[in-house]
Amino acid sequence: MENFTFYNSTEIIFGKGEVNRAGEKTADYGKKVLLVTGGGSVKRIGLYDRVMNAFENADLEVFELTGIEPNPRISKVREGVDICLEKEIDIVIAVGGGSVIDTAKAVAAGVCFDGDPWEMFTMEGEPDEAIPVGVVLTLAATGSEMNGNAVISNLETEQKLAIHTPACLPVFSILDPVNTYTVPKEHTVYGIIDIAAHVFEQYFSHTESTPIQDSWAEGIIKTLIKESEVVLENPEDYNSRANIMLAGTMAINGLLSIGKDDDWASHAIEHELSAIYDIPHGGGLAILFPNWMKYVLSEGTDKFVQYAVNVFNIDTKGKSDQEIALAGIEKTREWFNSMGAPARLADYDIGEDKLEEMAAKAVSRGPLGSYKVLEKEDVLEIYRMSL
Amino acid sequence: MENFTFYNSTEIIFGKGEVNRAGEKTADYGKKVLLVTGGGSVKRIGLYDRVMNAFENADLEVFELTGIEPNPRISKVREGVDICLEKEIDIVIAVGGGSVIDTAKAVAAGVCFDGDPWEMFTMEGEPDEAIPVGVVLTLAATGSEMNGNAVISNLETEQKLAIHTPACLPVFSILDPVNTYTVPKEHTVYGIIDIAAHVFEQYFSHTESTPIQDSWAEGIIKTLIKESEVVLENPEDYNSRANIMLAGTMAINGLLSIGKDDDWASHAIEHELSAIYDIPHGGGLAILFPNWMKYVLSEGTDKFVQYAVNVFNIDTKGKSDQEIALAGIEKTREWFNSMGAPARLADYDIGEDKLEEMAAKAVSRGPLGSYKVLEKEDVLEIYRMSL
Repeated sequence: MENFTFYNSTEIIFGKGEVNRAGEKTADYGKKVLLVTGGGSVKRIGLYDRVMNAFENADLEVFELTGIEPNPRISKVREGVDICLEKEIDIVIAVGGGSVIDTAKAVAAGVCFDGDPWEMFTMEGEPDEAIPVGVVLTLAATGSEMNGNAVISNLETEQKLAIHTPACLPVFSILDPVNTYTVPKEHTVYGIIDIAAHVFEQYFSHTESTPIQDSWAEGIIKTLIKESEVVLENPEDYNSRANIMLAGTMAINGLLSIGKDDDWASHAIEHELSAIYDIPHGGGLAILFPNWMKYVLSEGTDKFVQYAVNVFNIDTKGKSDQEIALAGIEKTREWFNSMGAPARLADYDIGEDKLEEMAAKAVSRGPLGSYKVLEKEDVLEIYRMSL
Repeated sequence: MENFTFYNSTEIIFGKGEVNRAGEKTADYGKKVLLVTGGGSVKRIGLYDRVMNAFENADLEVFELTGIEPNPRISKVREGVDICLEKEIDIVIAVGGGSVIDTAKAVAAGVCFDGDPWEMFTMEGEPDEAIPVGVVLTLAATGSEMNGNAVISNLETEQKLAIHTPACLPVFSILDPVNTYTVPKEHTVYGIIDIAAHVFEQYFSHTESTPIQDSWAEGIIKTLIKESEVVLENPEDYNSRANIMLAGTMAINGLLSIGKDDDWASHAIEHELSAIYDIPHGGGLAILFPNWMKYVLSEGTDKFVQYAVNVFNIDTKGKSDQEIALAGIEKTREWFNSMGAPARLADYDIGEDKLEEMAAKAVSRGPLGSYKVLEKEDVLEIYRMSL
């Protein structure tokens, strides 16, 4: 195991009906609230009204920043910062999924930042101050509800950049699985694949002797495999939605990567795909990740054998390590397919024409990953395997 | 899964050499430090000097409270509070194991408490304020380095009581596995059993559908089983000491019991044993826990079957659930025995004479546990099974 530091101060408030506590929890941090939301879905499911009721019961004064879209924009962050400064906002509350939460975090840090908010993303170092952020989660996927990361896009500069700072850890996150009952099947699947991908990025590592972290990662993947079948059959199965939601939060709150190298190449490779073709992140990951697994296998089969055996119970008898590892990767593909996820770039009508361009962009800040360090040619090969 | 809240703000600084950061981390909270230590072992292993050096490099003014013993006393807490008030201490640093850490926490809360520190333990409710506490850990066992619990004894009233408050969460804990190299074999074993017992108290539960929590608990137990063999062979195996230390911290920081009922009857039953016969907590747990398992099996075998299969790979073919469950319990006993832990009260020359008295005291505040709610007769039977 390698040396590490771990710090995560977000309070998780989990379970049916806990949204009603949004008012009292928010009031701990002041009277003036900026409520950040996305499109109409929080209104359609009645969540908006419940949150507003809770705020009213706690005598809070509410201002709003709404219309946050997937791949949230810096323009919305600027708008939020302006409201916060003008109205002297005490706390920013995100009601939504990753995009809404990331916007709220960037706004909260932007309020304390001396300069245009986009500079927080382009400067050396990380912002180290923010006003408090609270979350009411509506989608199990990005895990933004329990980490200090925020990813924001700038349409003018065509950049999508991230900040990672303890200052942006939500002070509380309310996770009510019932709020995910109405997430459409497609987005439920993309969320599950995103969560699995977060686990893979931390699980497949050359760091030796990390049995606790590994077993925790395997536990999350096995839970996702089991619950994905249940939830696609019955989207209102409480325990299944609850276990998927908990998986999403625990997958990327820092626990799974303590004391080990993590990778994140596949996320960077997918990012170029989403950026150019505007496909869902989870769909891109479903296509790419098993191919990344096959491609990096040359760097060592041990971890993939462990994965095949511990997650999929692959029978090892008479098989080489390479065969066992490939059987585990094949099972991963089968699982993704069974949920109706895309398996090839062709499923999105994506051909060869921009692969070179994407590969070049993916490594423009340097080579990717750690399990196998990937140069442009490696990334291109993974795209080609995915055609 | 049941509703839950989870909050744990302790920063974990883990790994070889991290003790050198004790000065800078402490200086974040002020200039005046109360250093709390136990007997001579921190001096013998050179840790005291390294911490003092780190403090000196950070220009800290250090006052000391030393001589903390196992089952730490309220008299020492009072002494510490007096020093803090007189010297206007900014932060309390514990260098030691559970007793030292618990004392430091009680001192830190006592400074902010209006009244004699013992009243914090006897009053309704929990203290909600404390000055900061930092930790340099020397023993993998109690998990006090990442929770808000402190257990203190009062010799005058013959009470041993606990507080549990987020106010007592250490602001940082430095965990260097090398500092446990010199822990004697016996105490290494007691520590491992204490950690395993913490996991059992949270794992064996009737709450349905907690696959993530369960897999994490199983992962910790499997790690302990594997690493206990390594560490008893080679006490200076870094990875083995590191995995046991991480297991101890993760076993009782709140993660394993999220969303489920926990039990803690065995700890209460052992507590009476230690109190009367002054035997080590880990030794008492080794004797009692497998008997608790057998005794409560009448309330349901499912979780014990899961334990037997997932932790010990018990072959289920041709066996009844009861047989599978008992095989898992037997394996637990064998594991404890293989480490040289005691298996019967007779190993400590404890006979029948005080069992009644202990059983009565164990339930004096009400019945124990949740997997099976235990009355006096139940506790007595578990003691008798242990003779």
